Amino acid sequence: MKNFTWWSPTIVIFGKGTIPQIADQLEAVGAKTALLLYGGQAVFKSGAYSQVTEALTKKGIAFPELGGIRPNPRVDKVREGIARVKASPVDAIVPIGGGSVFDTAKAIAAGACYDGDVWELFEGKIDGLKTALPIFGVLTASATASEVNTVGVISNPEKQAKTSISSPFLFPRVSIIDPAVQFSLPEEQTVNGGIDIMAHTMERLFDGYEDAELMDELGYALVRNMMRLIPDLIEQPDNYNARAEYAWAASMAHNGSLACGRPTRGDFASHKLGHSLSLLFDVPHGASLAVMMLAWARYLYRSHPLPFARFADGVFDVFEGTEEEQALEGIELLEDFFRSVGAPVTLRELDLTEADLPHLVENASTFLPFGVLKALDRADIEEIYNLAY
Amino acid sequence: MKNFTWWSPTIVIFGKGTIPQIADQLEAVGAKTALLLYGGQAVFKSGAYSQVTEALTKKGIAFPELGGIRPNPRVDKVREGIARVKASPVDAIVPIGGGSVFDTAKAIAAGACYDGDVWELFEGKIDGLKTALPIFGVLTASATASEVNTVGVISNPEKQAKTSISSPFLFPRVSIIDPAVQFSLPEEQTVNGGIDIMAHTMERLFDGYEDAELMDELGYALVRNMMRLIPDLIEQPDNYNARAEYAWAASMAHNGSLACGRPTRGDFASHKLGHSLSLLFDVPHGASLAVMMLAWARYLYRSHPLPFARFADGVFDVFEGTEEEQALEGIELLEDFFRSVGAPVTLRELDLTEADLPHLVENASTFLPFGVLKALDRADIEEIYNLAY
Repeated sequence: MKNFTWWSPTIVIFGKGTIPQIADQLEAVGAKTALLLYGGQAVFKSGAYSQVTEALTKKGIAFPELGGIRPNPRVDKVREGIARVKASPVDAIVPIGGGSVFDTAKAIAAGACYDGDVWELFEGKIDGLKTALPIFGVLTASATASEVNTVGVISNPEKQAKTSISSPFLFPRVSIIDPAVQFSLPEEQTVNGGIDIMAHTMERLFDGYEDAELMDELGYALVRNMMRLIPDLIEQPDNYNARAEYAWAASMAHNGSLACGRPTRGDFASHKLGHSLSLLFDVPHGASLAVMMLAWARYLYRSHPLPFARFADGVFDVFEGTEEEQALEGIELLEDFFRSVGAPVTLRELDLTEADLPHLVENASTFLPFGVLKALDRADIEEIYNLAY
Repeated sequence: MKNFTWWSPTIVIFGKGTIPQIADQLEAVGAKTALLLYGGQAVFKSGAYSQVTEALTKKGIAFPELGGIRPNPRVDKVREGIARVKASPVDAIVPIGGGSVFDTAKAIAAGACYDGDVWELFEGKIDGLKTALPIFGVLTASATASEVNTVGVISNPEKQAKTSISSPFLFPRVSIIDPAVQFSLPEEQTVNGGIDIMAHTMERLFDGYEDAELMDELGYALVRNMMRLIPDLIEQPDNYNARAEYAWAASMAHNGSLACGRPTRGDFASHKLGHSLSLLFDVPHGASLAVMMLAWARYLYRSHPLPFARFADGVFDVFEGTEEEQALEGIELLEDFFRSVGAPVTLRELDLTEADLPHLVENASTFLPFGVLKALDRADIEEIYNLAY
């Protein structure tokens, strides 16, 4: 176990019928005006928007709105929000949505308290941040755990970059999670989100660190349960209990707790390789992870069999054969699972062609070196994208 | 999954060599004077005391001291601390020790901000508490998780009561956990603490709730790992990695996270039954739990086999036979484990006689009804103490 610092100061209010409490929480800190953020129609369809706005109206809290935040959210929208807040100050930012909306909220919350252009914060100036607007969020799609962590990921198409900021000022003060508003999510989003949750866990399990057995086993339990919950929700999207377990697994997988005692936050090479896919070809984050994590694992399991063999044992009860054989069997079983829930497992299935591969390599290589189990170089990522194809 | 609210705002600074950071943390909030609390010689022997006082001295932070806090800490010591703080105010309370010292710190922190006698807070007036002195702690013995939760347990011999308070004001601001200072703990304390950690987890697993499978499996993983770590530490008390995993398991087991989504904080009947043992016969908390949890389980597994059968499967891979058979096998394997680490499993082994049983029943019955799997009545607890004998 390595040294670490951990806390989870976001007050999570979790469960059926909890959304109207957002207004009580804002009232408790004396907020008079809150900027509402959301994406597209889903927030109206699920009823989350009306639950929030009715509660705010009752308490007399004003709510200017900024909608239209898209998946893989972009810095132009962030700039629009910052301009709004600088022109007409608010007491809090209220994202109603999934990870994209929360991430945008964080970027606005930080940028509104920063003098330069917000993208400078993404280019390394975040440590200079001295405060941020408080975030009181309502989560309507679980996956990224942005509701309980300090991280915001934003794309900048001009710079061909998908980059994250992180600061303790960006912990949401309060996050309300009502799993019932996730009944109406499209199946594809439930699957992709579920894979993202598994990936957050696996990025830790695959870092090659051997002295965190307790943390490994908590991770295996989380992955096993996600492999039960995703199919349950495909079968029955309005299964409250499965939605609730899925939602809480999402928060736990990436509130930093699984990284406690590990040498780094996790490997995250698959995330980086997937980011280029999302950026250049607008592939959903979860789908990009299914493809890239398998290819990355197939590339590394021979030279680094142990974490994959342990994973095979902890998740799939595969304990026979050599380490390498166990490792491969685990990766194959993971691939089988991804297929069984309709996730893509190759770039070909995402309609990419061989001609696209150099663009992916080019894009991802600007962030090299990355990865913990192996610090990847350009030759490595060429090979991994080839394997993914 | 039931509705819940959860957060873990205590900043945990964990690992080798972290203790001197206590002074930086106090300096960061402008503290000039901190009341140091500790128990007996252990804090000197382990080096924790000198690490704290050297760091405070360097920063010019004054530290009046109150030592001599004993296991199953008592309200008279709490009153002494409150009188000290009221006579000569301090900016923070700094417990250096295990659960007893942290619990005493909480009671002092609360009582110092309360006008009446502190025991009134334990008798139900805690909701009236409006603030408390901030706690910056240094943990030297892991078990109760007092370092990351809002609970303080104090004994009042005059009233023959061992009772807890809980308030969000009592989350420590910062808790420093250096597993290396736990190398010198006596074996018995490592074993008893380990059983306490297991019990915190099992109190949740045995509440009979069926819709928190994810949370159950995290609990099984925690118990399994404790059953690896306790024997490892008996064998090798200065195994840093085992101390570290044990310490972090302790914090996780009772920072409220395992109760998320469950109908209550947990069953805790075994804790209540054990409290009477500690109060009347000064039995260490963990030892009382080993005895009482086994007896309680043996009393209930026939009428409520499911949670015990699931536990047997999740912890011991026992999946054959009827539910009742599985349940019993799990309880027997748990008893075998307790015996294997030298823990008592009967009241007789604690040198109690049959004549003592009515006193236990009498004492525990003042808190009836308690328990979640079954709300126990007087006849139930008589039977359980008999089984424990």
